[in-house]
Amino acid sequence: MLIKPPGFVFQFKRLQSSYALSKCINEIFKDPPFKSQTTVNGWVKGVRVQKRIAFIDISDGTSFQNLMCVVPPDQAKELRTGVSVQVTGEIKESNGKSQSIELKTTDPDSVKVLGPVLDSYPLQKKFHSPQFLRTIPHLRWKTQFLSSILRFRSHVEMKLMEFFTQEQFTRTHPPLITSSDCEGAGELFKIESASRADIENKFFGKDSYLTVSTQLHLEVLCMALSRVWTLTPCFRAEESDTHRHLSEFWMLEAEIAFISDVRQLTTFCERMIKHVVNSLHQDLEGQGSNLINSRRDQEFVHKMIERWDQLLNGKWKTITYTEAIDILSAESSKGNISFQFKPAWGEPLQSEHEKWLTGEYFKSPVFVLNYPKESKPFYMTRNPDGKTVACFDLLVPDVGEIIGGSMREHNIDLLLDEIKQRNMKTDDIEWYLSLRSSGSVSHGGFGMGFERLLCYLGCVENIRDVIPFPRSSRDCVC
Amino acid sequence: MLIKPPGFVFQFKRLQSSYALSKCINEIFKDPPFKSQTTVNGWVKGVRVQKRIAFIDISDGTSFQNLMCVVPPDQAKELRTGVSVQVTGEIKESNGKSQSIELKTTDPDSVKVLGPVLDSYPLQKKFHSPQFLRTIPHLRWKTQFLSSILRFRSHVEMKLMEFFTQEQFTRTHPPLITSSDCEGAGELFKIESASRADIENKFFGKDSYLTVSTQLHLEVLCMALSRVWTLTPCFRAEESDTHRHLSEFWMLEAEIAFISDVRQLTTFCERMIKHVVNSLHQDLEGQGSNLINSRRDQEFVHKMIERWDQLLNGKWKTITYTEAIDILSAESSKGNISFQFKPAWGEPLQSEHEKWLTGEYFKSPVFVLNYPKESKPFYMTRNPDGKTVACFDLLVPDVGEIIGGSMREHNIDLLLDEIKQRNMKTDDIEWYLSLRSSGSVSHGGFGMGFERLLCYLGCVENIRDVIPFPRSSRDCVC
Repeated sequence: MLIKPPGFVFQFKRLQSSYALSKCINEIFKDPPFKSQTTVNGWVKGVRVQKRIAFIDISDGTSFQNLMCVVPPDQAKELRTGVSVQVTGEIKESNGKSQSIELKTTDPDSVKVLGPVLDSYPLQKKFHSPQFLRTIPHLRWKTQFLSSILRFRSHVEMKLMEFFTQEQFTRTHPPLITSSDCEGAGELFKIESASRADIENKFFGKDSYLTVSTQLHLEVLCMALSRVWTLTPCFRAEESDTHRHLSEFWMLEAEIAFISDVRQLTTFCERMIKHVVNSLHQDLEGQGSNLINSRRDQEFVHKMIERWDQLLNGKWKTITYTEAIDILSAESSKGNISFQFKPAWGEPLQSEHEKWLTGEYFKSPVFVLNYPKESKPFYMTRNPDGKTVACFDLLVPDVGEIIGGSMREHNIDLLLDEIKQRNMKTDDIEWYLSLRSSGSVSHGGFGMGFERLLCYLGCVENIRDVIPFPRSSRDCVC
Repeated sequence: MLIKPPGFVFQFKRLQSSYALSKCINEIFKDPPFKSQTTVNGWVKGVRVQKRIAFIDISDGTSFQNLMCVVPPDQAKELRTGVSVQVTGEIKESNGKSQSIELKTTDPDSVKVLGPVLDSYPLQKKFHSPQFLRTIPHLRWKTQFLSSILRFRSHVEMKLMEFFTQEQFTRTHPPLITSSDCEGAGELFKIESASRADIENKFFGKDSYLTVSTQLHLEVLCMALSRVWTLTPCFRAEESDTHRHLSEFWMLEAEIAFISDVRQLTTFCERMIKHVVNSLHQDLEGQGSNLINSRRDQEFVHKMIERWDQLLNGKWKTITYTEAIDILSAESSKGNISFQFKPAWGEPLQSEHEKWLTGEYFKSPVFVLNYPKESKPFYMTRNPDGKTVACFDLLVPDVGEIIGGSMREHNIDLLLDEIKQRNMKTDDIEWYLSLRSSGSVSHGGFGMGFERLLCYLGCVENIRDVIPFPRSSRDCVC
């Protein structure tokens, strides 16, 4: 072996001959190799040493479950949580009530320590608070709850991909570097080659930014493929440091041609989320139940089950912005609720308004349609009332807004009129505008904050716990 | 209807009642709704008007195939390529040899123009060169060949996801904003909040960059989940403007714990690519054959079929860097080939060397193992010879390098020793180093240029034709 510092022992002879990957713990659980010598790799999650026998719980992170290894006591003496090990023995059915199988051996040389931990290693078998874990960003994903979240995240992406494929969408990859600003000024990150001190001579020949939404480019692809979606990072240089904002987050965006009503978008979004929830709810051995089992707090367990049930079987509300303002005003005049910001037509719905509507008043997801034109970007289709646009937000309990979407104005005259009223420059979006004179069709789309969806479905309070390395103002630690 | 400029007619009554999406053309081909009135939306790809009948080919981009609509001649008079239309009629079996079904109607009001094109609309029924199409980046994806490429791209991603899921990997999302530079100095994009003129007060509290590789962060997640992969944009501020470089490209990266030999990585990569190719080769009605059919040039058709055959059935070569240099030197001394750069041990393999080895000498994919230590980053595991590291590149005909990977040094003493020899600062990567004292395990990984894979599998010459909006020096048009 190449690397063999004192105390490290590797035994990979079998692997070296076939070059295959060894079985991971999830594979062993799914198809236990009974009656043959099996070698298992992983990290120690807990050790109990008794007089004649020792129990080591190990995990390799591929499964929610730890594999219990039953070994001679002297084999477990030097082990502690976090140490990486290789254990060889026989897979047997377990008598224990919390596991179906266990690895058993009486071989006095069955446990190899692969990599030790320092005495200062911070993770223990006990419960660690999310706050504490955020201080060790390079180690926190080793914990059972947070690793369940990452597997859950992967599962949700897979289910979304399944849904869009089934719905005849093409998954595509619009650019993150852009010279146009989709949502209006502000909150942008500017980029430049680090070696270009000479500011006159820009790398791209002009100012360039990180995208805040890929929508405009996605519309180009929509006019070619009819149904397109993407899941990409988006960036906002927001100073606000809340538990639901990030400077770098993943956004699912979709654009759909040949639709004419914003309700086609809301119906589609409801089906999309139900497709994901259905997979969590039905697969009792899958990521959904693993996530549930990784919560120690029974309150969260009940909340998650109830949430998924309600998403699938409850009725999702749809109201207009005007109705939302009416409800908010009426209820606050009655004294049923007091808000920091007084609800008023024309003003944006504040986060407190959104959360109360969905979490307290309706106690369900709420689509809010038709916001005032002035509060929305130039590309949204105007409604016949002249005051509102054909758009929607999806609000959900605890999290607030997780989706925003609209019909896109596809009539070039109306679009140019809106641009003129807003005194916008069009130099950087001429390509976008010219789509409207190149076989333009009625279309619409939406963007969903992927991390917000995960927070909602997983009943996770802080968005920093559902993304591997959160980025926000003054926070780019590792 | 809200938007109804003169000449535009919408008929979405059926949709408005159910809010479902209407059937797209791919769905109609897959499950033709015979004997019922069917409404189809799309863009005109070609029109032939005869005395008593007219033929309109329409596509909505969801399928490689156009749907032929047979309509009364006056219904097609004002149509031309690019116009968006809605056609209502009956789906029938077709007598034509190039299509299985057609939409037929004698209704004098069967074709609605949804959106016209300007007289200057650049796309015609004829063949357009890729060079020309790159000058109209907002319209080029409407062509049959380029739209096939986007569907192919989506398909390849789906097949990769299928493979990694099957292999027990978690798909994950490392950050693109980073304060550490994985591969060494140079070629970075720097980012800062656009509104922070005050250069002392940085948004993240320090200099931050766009990632050139997510590997270091992926290793963190690998130490938690054992098998992780990602497909994310990566960025290089390279000035070189070749047909295989981009400033923003998508990279598939994977890290695998509990492996000990670089050949486990090469074996895995071979299986990964074969999984994708197998799906192209087998599914004769799928994206693979559609891509083939979208090429007018028979030379490309043969090349693609031969390439896929050879990838599945041919033998992939594996040689060492030292062997590669020996072959290159011997063949160039014999005068069998002349290179601009003379091959010499210790020098990098140039693109011309790579392409000749794989395209001319072996005529197959080639894994080249064990490059000189000095030419590779600090984190690669040293080989016992003291001169080389346990790494590999995968070279393929036409494209050259598409994958690079290595074992990662997991022994903290050896890693620190290497860092010292290179005079590297470690302030920004302490989190990375501390993984080596936190239950470190032998592991390795690789990165594959997604666009390069697509160029190779699709026999596409220019990387700009497999990514929706290519970015490179002085090129960020739309």
